[in-house]
Amino acid sequence: MTLYLIGIGLENEKDISVKGLDIVKKCDVVYLERYTSLLQCSAHDLAKFYGKEIVLADRTTSEQGDHTIVAEAKDKDVAFLVIGDPFSATTHIDLFKLAKEENVAVEVVHNASILNAIGIVGLQLYKYGKTTSIPYLDDHPNLETPYRIVQQNKRIGAHTLLLLDIQTHKDRFMSVTEAIVVLEDIEKRVGEKVITDDLRVVGCARLGTADFMVKAGPLSEMKKIDFGKPPHCLIIPGKMHFIEEEMLELWR
Amino acid sequence: MTLYLIGIGLENEKDISVKGLDIVKKCDVVYLERYTSLLQCSAHDLAKFYGKEIVLADRTTSEQGDHTIVAEAKDKDVAFLVIGDPFSATTHIDLFKLAKEENVAVEVVHNASILNAIGIVGLQLYKYGKTTSIPYLDDHPNLETPYRIVQQNKRIGAHTLLLLDIQTHKDRFMSVTEAIVVLEDIEKRVGEKVITDDLRVVGCARLGTADFMVKAGPLSEMKKIDFGKPPHCLIIPGKMHFIEEEMLELWR
Repeated sequence: MTLYLIGIGLENEKDISVKGLDIVKKCDVVYLERYTSLLQCSAHDLAKFYGKEIVLADRTTSEQGDHTIVAEAKDKDVAFLVIGDPFSATTHIDLFKLAKEENVAVEVVHNASILNAIGIVGLQLYKYGKTTSIPYLDDHPNLETPYRIVQQNKRIGAHTLLLLDIQTHKDRFMSVTEAIVVLEDIEKRVGEKVITDDLRVVGCARLGTADFMVKAGPLSEMKKIDFGKPPHCLIIPGKMHFIEEEMLELWR
Repeated sequence: MTLYLIGIGLENEKDISVKGLDIVKKCDVVYLERYTSLLQCSAHDLAKFYGKEIVLADRTTSEQGDHTIVAEAKDKDVAFLVIGDPFSATTHIDLFKLAKEENVAVEVVHNASILNAIGIVGLQLYKYGKTTSIPYLDDHPNLETPYRIVQQNKRIGAHTLLLLDIQTHKDRFMSVTEAIVVLEDIEKRVGEKVITDDLRVVGCARLGTADFMVKAGPLSEMKKIDFGKPPHCLIIPGKMHFIEEEMLELWR
């Protein structure tokens, strides 16, 4: 039998591909991971549309439970649904790797992830450098990573995508404003002038959904904007082509 | 009425999302761009599955024809289908921008692109730097760009995705072997030892399809491998985590 890692996209139950839906319908067990991102619909909406019962896999089950899932796929068809694309987060490459090592058939159905969805902002996808994420400082008081990644990318003129903390178990989602405060906090500690008031940034919310929001402008202005429902993300442009500049003007 | 930019994924007619398919079925006109990538099925297969006539838009019509398409969307529902995701190539952000400027309603349905599909290789997507492409040298005898991008990314420890030339109008698709020859040719001219025989690279073909192929090893070995049908791409890893190293071992 086969383990299917299936991306279900970014908005709701209808973002699964036709191929993915055909596979889900024939599977014996359907898991949904739900800790690294969130949709604009409920797991119940998914179950109803797919016509399948859905087992929720939280962070614990999907890291410690990889062996269980792979073992299960030895004699059942198992679907493991991931919001966005299956390989946006590292844990799922572990699941794929384990299946390969255990000689369990494994197939992947890709889908859009935030890495595509940011294309709508108008900065060329080819010119993004490393991606980074911003966690809440309470867990990481000495955090420097996102700051250093922005600095590295700037050095080669690349744009930076910063993904903001998503704590589904606490129903806590970092906003653009909170993210900017974290970056400013790091700037105060590190003092290398990577994050300044006049730095041009792009704030985004709910990318990949009909209700998406994009605003571009200086950091100090973006900090005051309420981007509404999660998930949010932040982009710090590198060197821009004039068409990219013009696109950002659309989001003033 | 509305202009819909719809990604149709990477393999065949069933990679469109359920949402995308619903929209295509209700549109008055359906265009397909087909110059920046290719599927493993024909335009006829798409038309049959969608139950719609498909108008092929080649490079000329989609760059010069943006105005026509946007004007058409003023009183018709128009679908513009793109292989992969709508914003992998710059020209489509132009179409989106034009629609916005002309106050024509425009909606985007994202899908997987090569930028997601490379996730299966096992190098973290977050750690890729800028993406670059390798054109045939006959059109670009003094080409240095892909070499310089690899060099820049290496400087910050980032992985590089190199997309290989696709000339659908000539039915000519660059292979991994040809791409390595181009990089070696640049190395001979530039001589900064970015491309060496023992450089570890990952050759890929048909990513995002069931028939995908991935092989990792030194440049001199990868150069000899026949990766079969297009499209191919090449990855040059930057600094690797041990799990990334282990994943590459799977593709020896």
